[in-house]
Amino acid sequence: MDGFEVNILGCGSALPTTRHFLTSQVVNLRDKLYMIDCGEGSQLQFRNLKLKFQRLNHIFISHLHGDHCFGLPGLISTLSMLGRTADLHIHAQPDAEKIFRPLLDYFCKELSYKVFFHAFNPNKSELVFEDRTLRVSSIPLKHRVPSAGFLFEEKPKSPHIIREMIDFHKVPVSQIGAIKAGAAFVTPEGETIPHAVFTRPAEPPCKYAFCSDTAYYEKIIPLIEGVDVLYHEATFSHADIVRAKETYHSSAQQAAQIARAAKVKKLVIGHFSARIFNENILLDEAMEIFPDTILANEGMKLAIEHK
Amino acid sequence: MDGFEVNILGCGSALPTTRHFLTSQVVNLRDKLYMIDCGEGSQLQFRNLKLKFQRLNHIFISHLHGDHCFGLPGLISTLSMLGRTADLHIHAQPDAEKIFRPLLDYFCKELSYKVFFHAFNPNKSELVFEDRTLRVSSIPLKHRVPSAGFLFEEKPKSPHIIREMIDFHKVPVSQIGAIKAGAAFVTPEGETIPHAVFTRPAEPPCKYAFCSDTAYYEKIIPLIEGVDVLYHEATFSHADIVRAKETYHSSAQQAAQIARAAKVKKLVIGHFSARIFNENILLDEAMEIFPDTILANEGMKLAIEHK
Repeated sequence: MDGFEVNILGCGSALPTTRHFLTSQVVNLRDKLYMIDCGEGSQLQFRNLKLKFQRLNHIFISHLHGDHCFGLPGLISTLSMLGRTADLHIHAQPDAEKIFRPLLDYFCKELSYKVFFHAFNPNKSELVFEDRTLRVSSIPLKHRVPSAGFLFEEKPKSPHIIREMIDFHKVPVSQIGAIKAGAAFVTPEGETIPHAVFTRPAEPPCKYAFCSDTAYYEKIIPLIEGVDVLYHEATFSHADIVRAKETYHSSAQQAAQIARAAKVKKLVIGHFSARIFNENILLDEAMEIFPDTILANEGMKLAIEHK
Repeated sequence: MDGFEVNILGCGSALPTTRHFLTSQVVNLRDKLYMIDCGEGSQLQFRNLKLKFQRLNHIFISHLHGDHCFGLPGLISTLSMLGRTADLHIHAQPDAEKIFRPLLDYFCKELSYKVFFHAFNPNKSELVFEDRTLRVSSIPLKHRVPSAGFLFEEKPKSPHIIREMIDFHKVPVSQIGAIKAGAAFVTPEGETIPHAVFTRPAEPPCKYAFCSDTAYYEKIIPLIEGVDVLYHEATFSHADIVRAKETYHSSAQQAAQIARAAKVKKLVIGHFSARIFNENILLDEAMEIFPDTILANEGMKLAIEHK
């Protein structure tokens, strides 16, 4: 599969309920799994969703509130019991290692693999991680403690070769790689044929933005502009805007305003307060402003792809 | 309700599965709740079982392996978010406070209540806690790290007054308390009537023993002799006895041998290995030796009472 598949492991807010697990998501890109946040119970949900532990190498933690990271010690222990040998990378704020390392040293003395903490600065947008196919950057948010969302971007892909034009111009196989990379083709007769003749552009890279926890914060708009899917917290309904402001959370209406201003293609709202029994109120509120909104739910798999 | 109600929140072993949660139980005695162990996800199960957080004041931790205590930070945070003001008491080995206090100091800076850690020595049987109606003592076990089970004993109750005999001998109301406490009654004529005439013995106190994690360990037998219910770990089938010994766990057969030798009334087995897909194998194995055995399961409520 090209593009991302986003798995929602939990989309409740800090207080656990019988309806929701605590925050965690798993982004799947070409069978590599990237976890965002790891609330208590995430490893249980990881199992329930039949995801493969051995494909998980990177965990991104938005902020150091327990409902976003208390699942780390259990998950790390489990990976060791499963005999993992590959390194595990945790991308989080500088304090994370200070807090969790002593716990790991005590409980996981004989870990079968290494855990590396990579600190990023939550106060500016920076590249947190990249590999051959993916870039992950931080999105500074506005919360009671330093908090950062994450922008997942596929790297631009090579254009597609038009087989018929290659055949027509009798391009040797040895030169196809160069043409794919942007070179023109010079025929034996000395004619230069631009590479655009042989190629059609690749699908534009997919983009997914995760923004939780945060108050309404317009500064994120340029960072998430035009993403395919925005997950934005909507802890409260706008009727509770006073409480939302006090706790540095967003209402569903505010999430939708951000989505509209950033011209995203789809909005997923989550991080529902334990006080919200009918989430359709949040959905209706958001859809009035941004119709292409859906409610997150445990077990949801969102395919983000351009065909 | 008199007697104990034992709620099984989780009865899996260290590796989480889709079938079981990690170890945690809640003992209910006269609407006071006492938690035994607190694996990851215990607070979610606490909610799912519709137990009342405000009735929980004591948590007993058997040993410091993650699958028995990683749920503590989340539970403690949640209690604060619910506005708790009553003290919470955690009875555990001395290291527990050293490990968890820094985590609480970081994540729960503004806790609405106080958490006290009470250290007990897991190497000898000692009184861990008592109040007006309950005694909890430790049961030293044999595991890779120091581990202790817990014996929950109701305190002896006063005998029942036989109303008809009180009336027949015209005992003044003012003397009933003394008779209940064991005094004889002297009639106006000077005749002494022993208190046994006026009373029938109270039901014997209920006893519940929790023994996990442990290898087969005969030294626990005198400590749990005759209990109404014994929860004993049975991580493996006896076919896996080599692995059980290596990991200091018990087979179902061994759990049953302990139950038989201690003449307990009922055995509940749990802490099932993730490798066990058909737990009936464990049940059959145990029942061959100790017929009154049942399998623990999430959501199970065991009533332990003498009528």
